[in-house]
Amino acid sequence: MRPIGLVRSAYTATSQIPKGLGASHSAEGVLEIAPEFEEGLTDIEGFSHLFVVWMFDRAQGFDLMSRPPSDDRPHGVFTTRSPRRPNPIGLTVVELLGRDGPRLRVRGIDMLDGTPILDIKPYLSSIPEDQLRRGWLDEAEARAQKQ
Amino acid sequence: MRPIGLVRSAYTATSQIPKGLGASHSAEGVLEIAPEFEEGLTDIEGFSHLFVVWMFDRAQGFDLMSRPPSDDRPHGVFTTRSPRRPNPIGLTVVELLGRDGPRLRVRGIDMLDGTPILDIKPYLSSIPEDQLRRGWLDEAEARAQKQ
Repeated sequence: MRPIGLVRSAYTATSQIPKGLGASHSAEGVLEIAPEFEEGLTDIEGFSHLFVVWMFDRAQGFDLMSRPPSDDRPHGVFTTRSPRRPNPIGLTVVELLGRDGPRLRVRGIDMLDGTPILDIKPYLSSIPEDQLRRGWLDEAEARAQKQ
Repeated sequence: MRPIGLVRSAYTATSQIPKGLGASHSAEGVLEIAPEFEEGLTDIEGFSHLFVVWMFDRAQGFDLMSRPPSDDRPHGVFTTRSPRRPNPIGLTVVELLGRDGPRLRVRGIDMLDGTPILDIKPYLSSIPEDQLRRGWLDEAEARAQKQ
């Protein structure tokens, strides 16, 4: 595994990244792809949304149970987006705003500046919202609304 | 990077996996998580859909331009799901049907039997279909409908 590029983001500390219930990820940033991989972006302008696969390069170690910022109870790490995972891989859906050669301007950044990008994939289809169940997150939201 | 488990699938050769325009991924299979990571699945039963991050462990090398099965024209590899990518990482959305200890029964498998799993993440929200643009894939579908 080697980076294909780096995230350019306004976030330099994890404390700056919106987290928890109702956090909105509307920050803009740039996916800066290394020149030797630029040809792999051919035709990407036609896509509105992309998956970005990246490395939690500043996380160390992992926990199998994780206490997410959106709940006061611990849950299995594979039901959370915690950085402390057995393989420190991150996944973010971004909206593609524009391209300038090897630089993709995107909205929806929740990564730190300098984060290594491992892969970019096209976002091709969605699960309809009414078919989604989101386990403990739905329950935490319901509890928060009652309060 | 080390596998957290393996995919159990009916597919033993890539030629068996549905591909191209209109391909439907409704195959069922099992995500077999290694015992030492099972605790990380705690509370996963509440989620209807999961992201599976996995390794294209039988792909070798990569191409920056890729000719996908859904089109007769080459496109940048980062706009396709080609296995021949700079980092051989796969991403699949599956529906969680049930759990038996460290075994997750899922629908939507498009991986080969024995594929190493790197990570599992909760699927928390969707981009509405009417906001999606899918570049060359939309164009290839439109051409196919005209014929």
